[in-house]
Amino acid sequence: MLTKVTIKLIQSLKDKKNRQLHGLFLVEGTKAVMELLASKIVVKTLFATGEWISLHKVLLKDNCELEIVNEKELKQLSNQVTPQPVIALAFIPNYDITEIDFSKGFSIALDEIQDPGNLGTIIRIADWYGIKNIICSKNCADVYNPKVIQSTMGSFLRVNVFYENLSAFFSAHNKIPVYGALMNGKNLHQTKINSDGILLIGNEGSGISDELLTFVTHPITIPKIGEAESLNASIAAAIICDAWARG
Amino acid sequence: MLTKVTIKLIQSLKDKKNRQLHGLFLVEGTKAVMELLASKIVVKTLFATGEWISLHKVLLKDNCELEIVNEKELKQLSNQVTPQPVIALAFIPNYDITEIDFSKGFSIALDEIQDPGNLGTIIRIADWYGIKNIICSKNCADVYNPKVIQSTMGSFLRVNVFYENLSAFFSAHNKIPVYGALMNGKNLHQTKINSDGILLIGNEGSGISDELLTFVTHPITIPKIGEAESLNASIAAAIICDAWARG
Repeated sequence: MLTKVTIKLIQSLKDKKNRQLHGLFLVEGTKAVMELLASKIVVKTLFATGEWISLHKVLLKDNCELEIVNEKELKQLSNQVTPQPVIALAFIPNYDITEIDFSKGFSIALDEIQDPGNLGTIIRIADWYGIKNIICSKNCADVYNPKVIQSTMGSFLRVNVFYENLSAFFSAHNKIPVYGALMNGKNLHQTKINSDGILLIGNEGSGISDELLTFVTHPITIPKIGEAESLNASIAAAIICDAWARG
Repeated sequence: MLTKVTIKLIQSLKDKKNRQLHGLFLVEGTKAVMELLASKIVVKTLFATGEWISLHKVLLKDNCELEIVNEKELKQLSNQVTPQPVIALAFIPNYDITEIDFSKGFSIALDEIQDPGNLGTIIRIADWYGIKNIICSKNCADVYNPKVIQSTMGSFLRVNVFYENLSAFFSAHNKIPVYGALMNGKNLHQTKINSDGILLIGNEGSGISDELLTFVTHPITIPKIGEAESLNASIAAAIICDAWARG
């Protein structure tokens, strides 16, 4: 039986400040939850219907609490229009950015990406291309926002997302090529993107901020044939990551 | 002064069946409305604040009705969380698909793209790459859905969107190369996409339907380096359109 305190805690996790206060976040749906259970992230409690538990029993770890809930209770806990039969309450992991050598491999930096769907989609793109690290400015959407988690389709488990002061970050990594997606850069189709480097994507409306533009060593532009004024931030990220993968 | 009948009509246009019944749709926001007024689409009524009208008076056509509304009324009419100062009520245009020669140039066909954001984003991508025509299966999201219109960022004015039985369409155009985005096709990076052809993108969850797979002459796959199971439909469309633009 769900207590009022638990319901209130779960519902409070819609807000970033409560997720940070409790160090907890939610993952919904069978596929994402099964991947979560197989990952290094520690699950505190699984809320699931009796039917779901009996179907997935053999796969469950024995070190997390299990709470059997009914459909009505799931609706109270869920952030989705159609609640899934399972919701996991998990501890926010603490990755150490100083352990990562950004001079090897390709990373993505995001300057004020505010739309949760865009952030989630970019994490999924990174996972498709095997890009392990995303460095977000502090005013980006929060990766543990339920909408971000949902739109990553499980990819949040395989991509580290850090929140940093990007000016300080780029200053500290000033030997690494920084590719900036701009409107007046070099034609992407005529640019070979280095296997080691950082792709910087700017805000949905205003692009890369002036402060960060100074760190861009390779301004690049996706060639336009038609008339649209711009491309969505996640679309630009995808096209440039694909160009990087072409080598 | 807005009448109750007008408010009811505008609000009813959230539903596709009412848009089709009245042959009307809505466009919100200064940029999109100004582009709409400069297009061939016929605007029936502009609902705007007095301030907006005095700022944009010189640019307004004299052949559409003008209704001055206040903020509270705009809220009643708008589909957005933060209503814009102007909303246009426009007649749905009737494009004639038989006038188009699909054997020249590149087009996009969409098989059951249900998410309005995906459809809107794909229209914007088409506009970026100068792709003029999108053929949707009849169960795709409706282009005149306010969420689609909004996410095209004005590109719906420059891209024709048709709703057809795709099997019949492909049967009737069986000499045109059809590129299908699949999980087991030829490596996109090793494929030259013909300047004339059709890109077929499948449903968000289930991909291209078996019925339409038979029409794919060139199955292609975006190379995967990492572990994400799939890419979002609009992301796949963007990457393949960019490959087409590379020539």
